[in-house]
Amino acid sequence: MLSGSASIDHTNAYFRHGGSHIINRLSSSYRFALLQTDAGARLGELHTPHGVVHTPAFMPVGTQGTVKGALFKDVEEAGAEIVLGNTYHLFLRPGDELIARRGGLHRFTGWGRPILTDSGGFQVFSLAERRTITEEGAEFQSHLDGSRHQLTPERTVDIQARLGSDIAMVFDECLAYPATRDEAAESMRRSVRWAGRCRQRLERLRAGATEVLLANPGQAQFGIVQGGVHADLRRESAESTRAIGFEGYAIGGLSVGEPIDLMYQTVAETTRHLPADQPRYLMGAGTPEDLVECVSRGIDMFDCVLPTRNARNGQLFTSQGRLNIRNARFAEDDDPVDPACGCYTCRRHSRAYLRHLHMAGEMSAAALNTLHNLTFYLDTMKRIREAIAFGAFDTFRQEFLRSVSRLSQDS
Amino acid sequence: MLSGSASIDHTNAYFRHGGSHIINRLSSSYRFALLQTDAGARLGELHTPHGVVHTPAFMPVGTQGTVKGALFKDVEEAGAEIVLGNTYHLFLRPGDELIARRGGLHRFTGWGRPILTDSGGFQVFSLAERRTITEEGAEFQSHLDGSRHQLTPERTVDIQARLGSDIAMVFDECLAYPATRDEAAESMRRSVRWAGRCRQRLERLRAGATEVLLANPGQAQFGIVQGGVHADLRRESAESTRAIGFEGYAIGGLSVGEPIDLMYQTVAETTRHLPADQPRYLMGAGTPEDLVECVSRGIDMFDCVLPTRNARNGQLFTSQGRLNIRNARFAEDDDPVDPACGCYTCRRHSRAYLRHLHMAGEMSAAALNTLHNLTFYLDTMKRIREAIAFGAFDTFRQEFLRSVSRLSQDS
Repeated sequence: MLSGSASIDHTNAYFRHGGSHIINRLSSSYRFALLQTDAGARLGELHTPHGVVHTPAFMPVGTQGTVKGALFKDVEEAGAEIVLGNTYHLFLRPGDELIARRGGLHRFTGWGRPILTDSGGFQVFSLAERRTITEEGAEFQSHLDGSRHQLTPERTVDIQARLGSDIAMVFDECLAYPATRDEAAESMRRSVRWAGRCRQRLERLRAGATEVLLANPGQAQFGIVQGGVHADLRRESAESTRAIGFEGYAIGGLSVGEPIDLMYQTVAETTRHLPADQPRYLMGAGTPEDLVECVSRGIDMFDCVLPTRNARNGQLFTSQGRLNIRNARFAEDDDPVDPACGCYTCRRHSRAYLRHLHMAGEMSAAALNTLHNLTFYLDTMKRIREAIAFGAFDTFRQEFLRSVSRLSQDS
Repeated sequence: MLSGSASIDHTNAYFRHGGSHIINRLSSSYRFALLQTDAGARLGELHTPHGVVHTPAFMPVGTQGTVKGALFKDVEEAGAEIVLGNTYHLFLRPGDELIARRGGLHRFTGWGRPILTDSGGFQVFSLAERRTITEEGAEFQSHLDGSRHQLTPERTVDIQARLGSDIAMVFDECLAYPATRDEAAESMRRSVRWAGRCRQRLERLRAGATEVLLANPGQAQFGIVQGGVHADLRRESAESTRAIGFEGYAIGGLSVGEPIDLMYQTVAETTRHLPADQPRYLMGAGTPEDLVECVSRGIDMFDCVLPTRNARNGQLFTSQGRLNIRNARFAEDDDPVDPACGCYTCRRHSRAYLRHLHMAGEMSAAALNTLHNLTFYLDTMKRIREAIAFGAFDTFRQEFLRSVSRLSQDS
């Protein structure tokens, strides 16, 4: 068993809380333990101040402090051990300072398990309006009300410190696909410089050298490897980011429209340059097939809006592939969505009923579909972990890929 | 203990099922037991083929086969023993014949507890377009797609038989308020004639003399007393409806805009003409105060969209009155919606968080608010029943009315 070398230890560090000095025993329990490897896949445990995450793990996306279409009790019942929160959204509404005054994102939302926050970079590049990127950071207008804001590497560290997530991400530049090699190189190097500034800022926060209210002193910070689909740039980015030193490493800039094989290849080329004893997080991916394929290439953590977003559109993931509940052939289908699934939706309701709810525009359609899709994703991760533990990951992978391609992709 | 005189007994009756004769032991368990009375309030048990409903009872509205904003497991957890389904909506979509082929509304929806269906009359008068009312029935256009339909007393009996609810309602004419005395009288007498046709039709169905597929052979049928706010018309309607003979009696045509005192007075004047040993259902009411006041006037059953509809708009019912979660004063309020409430929403989330979800337009805002409001309504009914059991209903009533008026009605 390899144990994470980058665990945080701030015992008896000072930090400021609401403007007044407080001596705080920072009982940081951040630690990653790699338990086993099998056919490229890794079984691990990520210890955080709010509990353990068994990896490979999928993180449901909780953009605005809630997983869309689901109550946290249902997210827990589906088996989620960690959720993702979006810094961009929470910064704009209700505001990181308000959340900090409530005691951080865990206490504000009532979700007591681990939380990872992104840095807001992706949303600045995909959602915000009239953005200007300089070496200093990003200026943009809110997609909500057009108000002007600035996000810098330092600022996103402060915001995430106030949110008090268990894992914070560095601020990176998200390049559109396709980009030229030069664009990818330039952008990647800027992201590395920004990563350095993020790390410096966090160290100042940890040392208590700022007025920032730290909602979670045990917060870890992950670097992000960029470089498009260029193996040499990915290598350079991985090495530069490792040189700064983080508690974990993410792969950004994938799942943005590139061919699927190129994505898998880039993942494989990147993970080989990442430390074995720290967690690796593939940002924004993906389909159930992507999860399995990227686990086989050494990924430990995933997040994606697919299970929740597609649920709201009526697309359901099953052990036999995808189905769209709008389809007329389900109008009198008394079977559950997935006979192999044990979720509340499948235990209690038929495809005919779910189709009716969807066609009638009922909110419970989205809720029941979301519950099922989350369960399918989280069950898949559980099955992946079991397969690795039994040294049977490659068999599992082949059977899984065969099984989920059975239904026509009718959406 | 008075026992219901109108219980159904069809043991070994014949009825048609899908066109072929089937001998069926109709194990109808419909029965109403009046257990206790106290200060005008009645404690009872309504036995139905799908279980017992403790009265006074509140029925959450499940218009399209789902309670808006809630999953059935949450409706159960909130304490609902019966829900209401809307015949008009289910007839139009997905259709009563489709539901009958699925085995009826219970099997189709996955809700296994008792269901009461209205007759569609109210929706024809409030939702449908270009309606024409004749002695035969109502012709109208669907609010969904403009398609033309006809509902007659006989047809609504057949539809509800296919839905297989535990309690079916007769088809009645719903008069707009205000109406002249002559209009109210004429309309009421037509409703009585329609009620007679509904009863005749149900008797034919029970005798197996039709091709209608009965999804629930133990289905009971309630008559509806009309007559506006005129005591003499209410009396005439009650007596005529009793003369036809039903398993229970509803009061219709109230909570439609008349002054609240006039509603309470009309309820009191109507219940005195209804049989003591059968359940009384006040249709479409009301506020928490209405429930308590009408229980004191002898009502056993209620339904209303207020808890669910207002939840979606951010209005929350509490033991101290109503509050609207949109209000800026809740932005940093860490208290639960109602400290006296034990629902999931109040156990886990703060007003600040609920306000954030509502302002962000998250579906979970509606879901959490709905869960709370339903719990408040159903808890109120439980406290009413306990108060009656202890002979303390009048004390409860006075304290309840004082308590819920404490907060300003700020919505």
